[in-house]
Amino acid sequence: MRDVVEIGLGKTAQRGYHLDDIAIVPSRRTRDVDDVSTSWQLDAYPFRIPCVGHPSDATMSPHSAVALGRLGGLGVLNVEGLWTRYEDPTKILEELSRLDEGTAATRRLQEVYSEPIRPELIAERVRQMREGGGTVAVRVSPQHTLALAPVILDAGVDILVIQGTIVSAEHVSTTDEPLNLKEFIADLDLPVVAGGCTDYKTALHLMRTGAAGVIVGLGGDEWSTTESVLGIRVPMATAIADAAAARRDYLDETGGRYVHLIADGDLQTSGDIAKALGCGADAVMLGEPLSLCAEAPAGGAWWHPAASHPNLPRGAYGVANEPLGSMEQLLYGPADDPEGQLNLFGGLRRAMAKCGYRDLKEFQKVGLVLDR
Amino acid sequence: MRDVVEIGLGKTAQRGYHLDDIAIVPSRRTRDVDDVSTSWQLDAYPFRIPCVGHPSDATMSPHSAVALGRLGGLGVLNVEGLWTRYEDPTKILEELSRLDEGTAATRRLQEVYSEPIRPELIAERVRQMREGGGTVAVRVSPQHTLALAPVILDAGVDILVIQGTIVSAEHVSTTDEPLNLKEFIADLDLPVVAGGCTDYKTALHLMRTGAAGVIVGLGGDEWSTTESVLGIRVPMATAIADAAAARRDYLDETGGRYVHLIADGDLQTSGDIAKALGCGADAVMLGEPLSLCAEAPAGGAWWHPAASHPNLPRGAYGVANEPLGSMEQLLYGPADDPEGQLNLFGGLRRAMAKCGYRDLKEFQKVGLVLDR
Amino acid sequence: MRDVVEIGLGKTAQRGYHLDDIAIVPSRRTRDVDDVSTSWQLDAYPFRIPCVGHPSDATMSPHSAVALGRLGGLGVLNVEGLWTRYEDPTKILEELSRLDEGTAATRRLQEVYSEPIRPELIAERVRQMREGGGTVAVRVSPQHTLALAPVILDAGVDILVIQGTIVSAEHVSTTDEPLNLKEFIADLDLPVVAGGCTDYKTALHLMRTGAAGVIVGLGGDEWSTTESVLGIRVPMATAIADAAAARRDYLDETGGRYVHLIADGDLQTSGDIAKALGCGADAVMLGEPLSLCAEAPAGGAWWHPAASHPNLPRGAYGVANEPLGSMEQLLYGPADDPEGQLNLFGGLRRAMAKCGYRDLKEFQKVGLVLDR
Amino acid sequence: MRDVVEIGLGKTAQRGYHLDDIAIVPSRRTRDVDDVSTSWQLDAYPFRIPCVGHPSDATMSPHSAVALGRLGGLGVLNVEGLWTRYEDPTKILEELSRLDEGTAATRRLQEVYSEPIRPELIAERVRQMREGGGTVAVRVSPQHTLALAPVILDAGVDILVIQGTIVSAEHVSTTDEPLNLKEFIADLDLPVVAGGCTDYKTALHLMRTGAAGVIVGLGGDEWSTTESVLGIRVPMATAIADAAAARRDYLDETGGRYVHLIADGDLQTSGDIAKALGCGADAVMLGEPLSLCAEAPAGGAWWHPAASHPNLPRGAYGVANEPLGSMEQLLYGPADDPEGQLNLFGGLRRAMAKCGYRDLKEFQKVGLVLDR
Repeated sequence: MRDVVEIGLGKTAQRGYHLDDIAIVPSRRTRDVDDVSTSWQLDAYPFRIPCVGHPSDATMSPHSAVALGRLGGLGVLNVEGLWTRYEDPTKILEELSRLDEGTAATRRLQEVYSEPIRPELIAERVRQMREGGGTVAVRVSPQHTLALAPVILDAGVDILVIQGTIVSAEHVSTTDEPLNLKEFIADLDLPVVAGGCTDYKTALHLMRTGAAGVIVGLGGDEWSTTESVLGIRVPMATAIADAAAARRDYLDETGGRYVHLIADGDLQTSGDIAKALGCGADAVMLGEPLSLCAEAPAGGAWWHPAASHPNLPRGAYGVANEPLGSMEQLLYGPADDPEGQLNLFGGLRRAMAKCGYRDLKEFQKVGLVLDR
Repeated sequence: MRDVVEIGLGKTAQRGYHLDDIAIVPSRRTRDVDDVSTSWQLDAYPFRIPCVGHPSDATMSPHSAVALGRLGGLGVLNVEGLWTRYEDPTKILEELSRLDEGTAATRRLQEVYSEPIRPELIAERVRQMREGGGTVAVRVSPQHTLALAPVILDAGVDILVIQGTIVSAEHVSTTDEPLNLKEFIADLDLPVVAGGCTDYKTALHLMRTGAAGVIVGLGGDEWSTTESVLGIRVPMATAIADAAAARRDYLDETGGRYVHLIADGDLQTSGDIAKALGCGADAVMLGEPLSLCAEAPAGGAWWHPAASHPNLPRGAYGVANEPLGSMEQLLYGPADDPEGQLNLFGGLRRAMAKCGYRDLKEFQKVGLVLDR
Repeated sequence: MRDVVEIGLGKTAQRGYHLDDIAIVPSRRTRDVDDVSTSWQLDAYPFRIPCVGHPSDATMSPHSAVALGRLGGLGVLNVEGLWTRYEDPTKILEELSRLDEGTAATRRLQEVYSEPIRPELIAERVRQMREGGGTVAVRVSPQHTLALAPVILDAGVDILVIQGTIVSAEHVSTTDEPLNLKEFIADLDLPVVAGGCTDYKTALHLMRTGAAGVIVGLGGDEWSTTESVLGIRVPMATAIADAAAARRDYLDETGGRYVHLIADGDLQTSGDIAKALGCGADAVMLGEPLSLCAEAPAGGAWWHPAASHPNLPRGAYGVANEPLGSMEQLLYGPADDPEGQLNLFGGLRRAMAKCGYRDLKEFQKVGLVLDR
Repeated sequence: MRDVVEIGLGKTAQRGYHLDDIAIVPSRRTRDVDDVSTSWQLDAYPFRIPCVGHPSDATMSPHSAVALGRLGGLGVLNVEGLWTRYEDPTKILEELSRLDEGTAATRRLQEVYSEPIRPELIAERVRQMREGGGTVAVRVSPQHTLALAPVILDAGVDILVIQGTIVSAEHVSTTDEPLNLKEFIADLDLPVVAGGCTDYKTALHLMRTGAAGVIVGLGGDEWSTTESVLGIRVPMATAIADAAAARRDYLDETGGRYVHLIADGDLQTSGDIAKALGCGADAVMLGEPLSLCAEAPAGGAWWHPAASHPNLPRGAYGVANEPLGSMEQLLYGPADDPEGQLNLFGGLRRAMAKCGYRDLKEFQKVGLVLDR
């Protein structure tokens, strides 16, 4: 059983582990790197790499989402971001790419995101992505799902991502009609990805809503302040492993329905990606790491969608860095930098080879060591 | 049972946890933030938020204590501070607001606090606070309680706070007549809050004195040096949870007397407040965080009352920072800074909503993870 | 039983704790600080405070050793230091007080300590200390004990301190006649203090040699490099508690012989002193902290005797700081600095009062918390 | 049994320990440092110290390998390094010794190592080392072993080191004919050292291939980025102890074949060397520490062979430091620096003496404490 600690008389806490707390231990045969596959499939959609773009305006525009799709990943556009609030947000993105760190940046984010969402722009953005080819996916918050879903569905997306800081299968409200995820998904005929969540129970309940994928984690990165603001911190290794247990139990319960886990948080390097998959994730959602490619819409600056919240922002603005290379180089190399930020999936592939695994599903069984 | 470690042959230590060691885990339904209440009541006095002002001259003047009361918290004035030593301490506060860090600041604090306490000023300050409206509370040290109580009670306060570094129910002295808290409280007809304490036994004994509230912790903050000077360090998560166990046991023992726990220490952000309440506290005492509001009497500088001790100061002087906003903005937002120092109780409310709780008493059951 | 960890298959390690890992938990009555005693007695020699001066030339000269004695502690002069190598080392000490950190300082220490020891100077230094009044104690290394003891004993000291990095009751050599501590001590009629040692077994064996006191620890301080050079690191809380267990067992074995434990290492502040005594030490040996008083012979610079080793120095040179105050102020206050470096034994006394203890022997039972 | 942690439901991790987590505890007799031996023997080759040079071009040239041999260690030249790609790499080494940290350095390393290996230069380098006298050893990667072995063997080396990031006894490939280590070694009549490996099973399998020595670890140093790139991190204390268990089991299984363990990683100081041997290693492989001697071929700069990988470099370039002394002084002192980087094996010898051990094999039983 898991380690449960009594932090005081009668009050317990589960012990949780971060990706930084663990490492991979090669302990069997090794394998040729050319014999290793990183392919992934969600519902009917095949991907060359298990990579989902984080629906922040700093990483995902209609253009960069298409680019990621062409390179074998899944781009996701936020339909509550700048592209659906402004006819042409490029000037704003350019301005946002040149802010300094600090409170003034947060204030400016709050301002530009106070513009209302224009439904007709949702349709327009989906059309642009559709034209670009590849799988089309957008993100909507649970609060706005009921209002925006008709427009989104009319526009014709392939995959719908319903993502908030914490998404539960049961949202209680005395004022608004809350979203009933299970009924909502049952009525759709496209795959839905929902989250984030941080524990076994919520993950299992989200699976039972019929979601094709569940997002594990809250998008924690070096700019995240969720812990300072809400007291909530997600030990990702534990959260992923617990959600993987929910996936197994749900698979058993349904006699074979496999729900994909997409890890979202504390992912900076190819090593982190390998660890997240080794803990049981099926794919990773990359935010800040993708802001370092030349195609990034905000010139290398980074902010999480929660950073622009009007009265309780939960993430700081990260100033733009010089791009490390093209999106292709970021994903597939060659790397001319040894820090694990380039050749993200070449690094994953090599880690799998050093441990002797052939594909991602096998690699979820890799040995781990806890050493911090 | 709690983890007891043998640090050497035959010498054991309980394992203790800080608020930084734990985090909140949402693991059930979510709830609309508008359906969440942060109201708190101590004895007959209702409060909109579970917030007690730390009786340091850096945060609590008659004016700012009233302001906190108007905003729904409980202001507490130190009757052994500058306001009862000086007819008009504003010039001194202004000077203290401009000191530099270091030994010279400590020396200056020692000097200004060497002025004797003038009982007539106690009456005057209580009168000022009474005129401001709201609940009137003052703090006195256990050493001076017997001497100053008559003046305080005559002046007519609502709540008396007896607070020292460590307050026990049994103080032993061969020279002075020590304060017998139980008898003292029995003779009063106003609620008494007493502390700080750091463990189950002392908390239980303080409850048995008849106190309406018990302070848990020693006001630890980034400027505290209690550990360096006395070797005493309080792991707040453990101290609060242990005191909460004492509250349960005392509730059972008395067939229903509920003593409130006020956490005092290691509280910087809304996330810290959420964690302290999640560990079992009923309210928090805020010192340094309130020094960051425009109403702070020392212009943003901070010092703990123990920092001016004449021969063994136990806290350093913290230089003034620019205020982050008004007291109202600090407590209720909107925040334009993502670090958790603004919108302190809006952050708490949102944390409760993410975890699906309606009120503070329910929220004491929130799930915790230990991840450091 | 103690926590034994298997670090790899079949290889175990005891878990050890530093003074920094633990803290004192007040958990009973409180007591008037004036009712608390810090007195200590070693053999026939009474002391007002449990304080032994570290026999480094940076802290202990004939003059400062006498000064410490007058203030109620035990000064110890190193008879293998500068005072027995030079007729008048004041110029050298002055030069050493002005070195810069780094390799050049180490080289200069190696040079000045390469001068041979002159036995007649040992007699002279003892005479000077004797004239100063108080208890006279000197330190000799185990390697030189047989050679130097006759001179030392002729000169007439009260207490002999045999101290090396690691002193065992059984030193093996195929070349020299090794010191047999048991026989050596049996032949003396003055109390011997021996060490350092770091574990139960060595402590017990040293007790069985007839030593009146055992030094626990290797004098670790921020300038120590014993771990880098030798791989040896002493978790002081564990080492003291283990040696205290040896003291109990030896007391039982002998039907009442009480051997005093003198903690030497990781002691910077009054809080550290309180923790060391709370773990079971009878007294503390202070090196670097005493270098901060005006009477320090090297003007505030600090080096451990091992820092001048001719081919394997194990400690860096610490540049001189401005003195914090007189030796009296350092020991007894008043403090005008809140960091625990002044009023070292006033801080100890107050810690004892907060925990309700009357004397040092009682205080060894104080409650501890492990919180790092 | 070892501590196995459930990091999430159903997913476990072994707890691993770094050399920094442990320390040596002297707990028995002490011994004269002159009675201690550090001699080591691998197959028929005796060494004065258990020191193997890391086959990086930054430390091992034909010249410095010979120098290390003369001083009693084992030099190893990388036959896939600069000396077999360039007729005379001294100008390149000189250029590389003057690079700045960062991406440009990595790019330059990638460029100079893109030159093809010239087999005739292998023969030439071996001849140079043979002329220098002493034991001749070279390193080849597992990928190139089959291709380069004939040339190497013809040239006449004494010991062959087959070293890659992770070397397993069973490499799987669908494209190339993989190296079958067992058959390869069986056909040779010279001792082979193989690795790195990080766990019991891989170590045991490598022993079963007939290797005379097994390398434990991946050469981790402050410039290594293996964790960021591959997610693999080696807790060396655990890896060494586990491999030592494999050595014991293999000794039993074979009725007496003793395979030597060479620790490669996290070794900076004499203290680290003592800890690695105390965990069960027979010898250490030193990279970065040897780059600090005057004989270092790249003037004090340091890079691991993996730092020049063409598309996935896994190590950063470390700029040149001033040499600390000659190779002799680095290995045997005298030290004029107390940080444990000089007199590496004098420090080891003294650590053994403080713990009362006579030789390296005995010292593997030294007591350890876990204290971080």
